Amino acid sequence: MNIPRVLTKYRSEISEEIRSVVDGRSLPLYDMMRYHLGITDEQGFRLRDGNGKAIRPALCIFSCEAMGGSYQSALPIAAAVELVHNFSLIHDDIQDNDRERRHKPTVWAIWGKPQAINAGTAMHILANSALLRLQDCRIPSSKILQINRRLDEITLDLIEGQYLDISFETRFNITKTDYFAMIEKKTGALLSGAMELGATIGTDNESLIKSFRDIGLNLGMAFQIKDDILGVWGNRDETGKLTGSDIRRRKKSFPVVYALSNMNSDFSKEIIDIYKKDDIDNIDINRVLEIFEKTSVRSEGQQLVAKYCDAAARRFESLNVSAESKDEMSEFIAFLTDRTY
Amino acid sequence: MNIPRVLTKYRSEISEEIRSVVDGRSLPLYDMMRYHLGITDEQGFRLRDGNGKAIRPALCIFSCEAMGGSYQSALPIAAAVELVHNFSLIHDDIQDNDRERRHKPTVWAIWGKPQAINAGTAMHILANSALLRLQDCRIPSSKILQINRRLDEITLDLIEGQYLDISFETRFNITKTDYFAMIEKKTGALLSGAMELGATIGTDNESLIKSFRDIGLNLGMAFQIKDDILGVWGNRDETGKLTGSDIRRRKKSFPVVYALSNMNSDFSKEIIDIYKKDDIDNIDINRVLEIFEKTSVRSEGQQLVAKYCDAAARRFESLNVSAESKDEMSEFIAFLTDRTY
Repeated sequence: MNIPRVLTKYRSEISEEIRSVVDGRSLPLYDMMRYHLGITDEQGFRLRDGNGKAIRPALCIFSCEAMGGSYQSALPIAAAVELVHNFSLIHDDIQDNDRERRHKPTVWAIWGKPQAINAGTAMHILANSALLRLQDCRIPSSKILQINRRLDEITLDLIEGQYLDISFETRFNITKTDYFAMIEKKTGALLSGAMELGATIGTDNESLIKSFRDIGLNLGMAFQIKDDILGVWGNRDETGKLTGSDIRRRKKSFPVVYALSNMNSDFSKEIIDIYKKDDIDNIDINRVLEIFEKTSVRSEGQQLVAKYCDAAARRFESLNVSAESKDEMSEFIAFLTDRTY
Repeated sequence: MNIPRVLTKYRSEISEEIRSVVDGRSLPLYDMMRYHLGITDEQGFRLRDGNGKAIRPALCIFSCEAMGGSYQSALPIAAAVELVHNFSLIHDDIQDNDRERRHKPTVWAIWGKPQAINAGTAMHILANSALLRLQDCRIPSSKILQINRRLDEITLDLIEGQYLDISFETRFNITKTDYFAMIEKKTGALLSGAMELGATIGTDNESLIKSFRDIGLNLGMAFQIKDDILGVWGNRDETGKLTGSDIRRRKKSFPVVYALSNMNSDFSKEIIDIYKKDDIDNIDINRVLEIFEKTSVRSEGQQLVAKYCDAAARRFESLNVSAESKDEMSEFIAFLTDRTY
């Protein structure tokens, strides 16, 4: 599957911007960050390319350019947004007790949880340092403060989403509404914020900025539901996760929330009993997958992904932006719908 | 022992400022913060007074006023500094596995570690929100950005100090130099930063601002060494810690670092053997206390506290500030030297 241009065209500049913030710091605290970001390997040796798809910073710069801004001025925000995302992943892995991410051991699995907490917190500070480089781009101080304030609100939404996600672990009465409210904060907020803040560099028009925020929110919802589908039916070679891995991890993600709210009580009880077991084995996972197959949860999920993508596409089409931007957005949305990793 | 005026005169305004940032947010995430700050009890009922001595915000406002600034303009920084201190305590308790602080269960002991990580991170964001209230005090945007950047650097120092402190846990070859470098970051940076940033509101004179930073650093070093002494010889009723509690917790604090670097190898080996035990009991603690008594570690510590306090006092005396400010600083320094809690 082809990677859309949006994700490749600014990639090296984004990496460079992030490296400029985390490089040149010698304490081993920063080794953990560079490792997590894929800048170095576990031994501290330089790697060629960073980790992850870096969707948020790419959409941030894309939104800036679509509004006629110069992409250089959006780089500090792009780096900040990606560092916020990554600090939250470092803490997320601790909270979820996940030992592996992107085919590699997580930070805490190598350095222990106490130091991994420090690495995440320090990366959060560096996200702010990255943002303050807007001063070098001649953005007025008052506007930088406004962006700073918004990024704080967005990051607080993300943490609230993380709070809700963890609070779901002990509950089996999660409604679809609960689930959507959670992913709107946990994933929607930062993806939406990346586009909103990128657009802010290109325009002061509040109504246009709001359009980018709404488009980002729709893309974020689509992205998370797709992620939840891949967390159950993904291919390990592509996603780095085993089939059924979110079942093993007892995640209250889209498939199980939908299944529990759509199904008769016998099947529900069976799923709940499995989720309550001390150790979920392959037989359990296959049984849950079998129950999922009896319902239309997988296709319902894919339909929801399409619905959110359509909403984003229609909104973007209505904007007065270049044909090239529209083309790139269509390509990105197609990727989001069909991605297998 | 009398509480010095510096710690009482702005106390209610500081509490008010902090409450204005953490109040009115309904998610249980914020209940954890209000509990930690002593605004509410475990059940969410309102308490009369906040937690802790609130030394940092008090010194921040004191420094502002000593430089002729209006204290109202320093309140946002004071609140930010206190929230930074408290977010680090929430994470610190997780990292150290401490179930009790200030005679009460820690946040993680009640809500679990995953959610306590979120509470700390969200409080870190609110520290920045508190700082941005400087806009309401008509501080120019460019100056707010400069203060924001400094607070980031200071907080990063704090996390680096926390990193070093944890890295000491597995080491027995910690020199006095290592120890001073660690507490300079872990405690010195924020206390120093509180005074520096407070002074910034009252003056633009870089040399004066540096004086406040240096005075704060000396006070911070004195504060931490005193804290380490109280962590071994403190009285539980006053400090909330049992005698010898830092020994039980295997902390590489001042007494043990000094003892190990001053003593003959037989005693050193005995201390190290006790620190390596799976379970340190009262007999072990008494033996370590006995060994400490054979050396002059306790009086050396108290001399160091006096040395740092003297340096701060002399520097402050040389400043062109009011007699009242000088008087208040002397009183505060006497408290720092003699405090038993």
